[in-house]
Amino acid sequence: MTIDFRVIARQLGLLLLVMSALILSMTGFAVVEQGFSALWRSPDALAMLISAAVGIALAAALVGVGKRSASIIGHREALLLVALSWIVGGLIAALPFWFWASLRSDAGQVANDFDSLVNCYFESISGLTTTGSTIVQAISELPRSILLWRSLIQWLGGLGIVVLFVAVLPMLGVGGRRIYRIEAPGPSPEGVRPRIAEAARALWYIYLGLTVLEIVALRIAGMGWFDATCHTLTTLATGGFSTLDASAAGFPSPSIQYILILFMVLAGVNFGLYHMIQRGEWRKVIKDHELRCYLALIAIATITITVSVYRHNSLSPSEVSPPASVAETIQHSLFQVVSIQTTTGFCSTDFDTWSYVPKAILMSLMFVGGCAGSTGGGIKVIRIMIAAKVMAAEIEQVYRPKVVRTVKIGKMAIDADLKRGILVYVLGIMLLFAMGTGGLMYFDADQGIDITTAATASASTLNNIGPGLALVGATRNYAWFSAPSKIVMCMLMILGRLEIFTIIVLFTPRYWRGE
Amino acid sequence: MTIDFRVIARQLGLLLLVMSALILSMTGFAVVEQGFSALWRSPDALAMLISAAVGIALAAALVGVGKRSASIIGHREALLLVALSWIVGGLIAALPFWFWASLRSDAGQVANDFDSLVNCYFESISGLTTTGSTIVQAISELPRSILLWRSLIQWLGGLGIVVLFVAVLPMLGVGGRRIYRIEAPGPSPEGVRPRIAEAARALWYIYLGLTVLEIVALRIAGMGWFDATCHTLTTLATGGFSTLDASAAGFPSPSIQYILILFMVLAGVNFGLYHMIQRGEWRKVIKDHELRCYLALIAIATITITVSVYRHNSLSPSEVSPPASVAETIQHSLFQVVSIQTTTGFCSTDFDTWSYVPKAILMSLMFVGGCAGSTGGGIKVIRIMIAAKVMAAEIEQVYRPKVVRTVKIGKMAIDADLKRGILVYVLGIMLLFAMGTGGLMYFDADQGIDITTAATASASTLNNIGPGLALVGATRNYAWFSAPSKIVMCMLMILGRLEIFTIIVLFTPRYWRGE
Repeated sequence: MTIDFRVIARQLGLLLLVMSALILSMTGFAVVEQGFSALWRSPDALAMLISAAVGIALAAALVGVGKRSASIIGHREALLLVALSWIVGGLIAALPFWFWASLRSDAGQVANDFDSLVNCYFESISGLTTTGSTIVQAISELPRSILLWRSLIQWLGGLGIVVLFVAVLPMLGVGGRRIYRIEAPGPSPEGVRPRIAEAARALWYIYLGLTVLEIVALRIAGMGWFDATCHTLTTLATGGFSTLDASAAGFPSPSIQYILILFMVLAGVNFGLYHMIQRGEWRKVIKDHELRCYLALIAIATITITVSVYRHNSLSPSEVSPPASVAETIQHSLFQVVSIQTTTGFCSTDFDTWSYVPKAILMSLMFVGGCAGSTGGGIKVIRIMIAAKVMAAEIEQVYRPKVVRTVKIGKMAIDADLKRGILVYVLGIMLLFAMGTGGLMYFDADQGIDITTAATASASTLNNIGPGLALVGATRNYAWFSAPSKIVMCMLMILGRLEIFTIIVLFTPRYWRGE
Repeated sequence: MTIDFRVIARQLGLLLLVMSALILSMTGFAVVEQGFSALWRSPDALAMLISAAVGIALAAALVGVGKRSASIIGHREALLLVALSWIVGGLIAALPFWFWASLRSDAGQVANDFDSLVNCYFESISGLTTTGSTIVQAISELPRSILLWRSLIQWLGGLGIVVLFVAVLPMLGVGGRRIYRIEAPGPSPEGVRPRIAEAARALWYIYLGLTVLEIVALRIAGMGWFDATCHTLTTLATGGFSTLDASAAGFPSPSIQYILILFMVLAGVNFGLYHMIQRGEWRKVIKDHELRCYLALIAIATITITVSVYRHNSLSPSEVSPPASVAETIQHSLFQVVSIQTTTGFCSTDFDTWSYVPKAILMSLMFVGGCAGSTGGGIKVIRIMIAAKVMAAEIEQVYRPKVVRTVKIGKMAIDADLKRGILVYVLGIMLLFAMGTGGLMYFDADQGIDITTAATASASTLNNIGPGLALVGATRNYAWFSAPSKIVMCMLMILGRLEIFTIIVLFTPRYWRGE
């Protein structure tokens, strides 16, 4: 059975059409800000216009190819479509960067970060996968429409992930619906599609609602509308792109920082739970084991890090400045724990100067990540919980080989398939992390890359976080990597974002032969 | 049901008795070499005598405690006995080092490596677990009886592991007999014990036969009897202690090096296969999938490393010396691949100066290790094979959620329990590796430890290899670590050697409550 490429082309075309429309709205934003003359004078407005035109042309071609395709999309086609959405979507999202840099250099400007296509693609994949690693060395010098676009693609990527993993894939039987706590749809006369559409709509309203809430909250706390919007778009996606070089440290007001913390925490929660709240099922939400474990992890990590940071006075290491207060220490510790565990990647301070224990904890949290069905990356809290329980059960097997205990999370029994699937997933993440580290070490040996940099860059991109340690620390960026390393990291970001197997399957001959 | 400590005491006492007898034979060795006056003049002979006396006293006490114990050992007792054999055995094996150093310092000698108890225990655990990491900074200055004892405890540890994992544990239903390809004993009127005894006897003859063969071969190739014996004892155990500071590089003769290579390869094979050969089942051995994969891995790694080492001329990097020949390059590449994969840890050259790719391959081979049922450490080839097949099957599940394919190694179908067990094992090794690395980083931060050193020291001790990279590279040793780090590594060595769960289970309350 061959793959039906036409149905894929059509869906992909529709996605590109939406993205092009959004790029076009960026032109609108530039015009509103700078007047109509921006269209011929301002390189960013022009770049948006050209990108939108290219995107629409490509979208039209794809929709044309898929015109007479079947209306139902098959299992294998859906997987390919998902992968292509991010891979090709990344190309379209990169166009504004590329055209802007080209138009700008034509105008005799100095070389900038978007002069290389690989850089543009890295930035846009980092956006769509909600990672937040950037190759931009002077973020605040970017035009406002470009800054807004960077934030918007993260928001779009976050929305895409939630809809995909909570509404679409589990209904198709992919990705273990049980870890998203979705009731099986069961045989209904209307079939699966209306349920997907309904769930997707609900998620969309939730996402939009949280967006409005956060923008208003940040505005009230003193941020400008523009910064409030950009940071909201990247908070809810757990993306982490900022409009300032200093990231969240550029907004030192505690009220702003606590608002960011609150919404990062909310973005790291299973969006299915918000859907439950909508339906009035409060009790279920409060009793949710993953949610409790997620909050407990944040609390424990914050307390440990606060103690260590305060004891070593890591927040103000210089002898001139007064030592940081307890309140400040708690705030920054909480901020960094939440930012890393939810895989957002905002930096409220340079945690690379912290001592060993806080850094080791942050490094571990990178792999934990948010809850399943959130916009957060990482392995996900529920998988860690199940893997830990399976390992504990295995230990008991050593001295009681005949006793079989059921592994449970709350009332949900974990069957053999799910156990195996989760163990394989965790192992897959470890392997990819090791391979990624090895790849970066190999490709950037000439640049004197150290293992800390390579390992944290690999972990940070694979788990869709953003910053790492050492040369990719809080105050650094990814511009200095060689092109092959950047491609490795693009692959890691996509693999991590789409939970590995959705991508790896495309590299197996059997998938293509349809066996 | 409480644990029957008396039966454990008795068996442990018998083990200590055997070890004390062996220590006593070291006194005999010193007397033969130095005459009877050694007993009061030579600190090493005296140390052996005292150690044997202490050991025998302890053994007698333990046997006394267990005098009226039951003759049958239970499941939980067997597990505790296994752990204590290595932990307490390590104490007895460390006595000669400690007494020798004490007697020597009394005589006004300079401080030496065995002055600290932790160092003595590290060295003896490194021996009994067949790891081969050493804290001795000037090996060739040690007295010959001490050198022989160091080698002998490795040999003893190797024998213990083979008997334990091939004959004892699988019969008790622990550790998955299927990965050792042992036919189930089935209900026999004689019960399980005679079969264990029979299998243990066969393994003992095989081990002894290989020992005699290698000693003779090395002697013929030009090594002295003493060095030939010591190196044989540590080759067959895949231990890697040497009598020279330069390790195997001190015997540059190619014939010696190829003999070492051959016997390292043989020591990394499932000893159950030799038992099959004894019974004339050649065909089964030749068709053994793990054996083939093991040899294939060695071949592929050797070819890749040879090419890289030759191209970078890594063997003679100085500009004065002529470039190494192809034959030399193959020899050293093969030697290091075999030495690391079998987890022996001999060094024929300083591979720490090699370029990135060979080092990355060696680092990966550390985790693979030898075959199940060999004296080699690591995860074991068969586990890697099964884990890889399970992961491949999992990928297929993504696009065909309803197809269930049986994972097979040859004709052996892998059931859900074994799959889960192996995945958990691999994950457990990864976690311990990460925790070990973190522990070493933490405890030796003051000494400026780098991640490469910490990670390779953790991998090297956990997988029972010996050398690592950087500060624990081929020409270095483990003397400089802080005491807490050495204790961490002792734990890693024991955990790795006894395949993790046999040890971890002892830390669970349920095991002690007997639930």
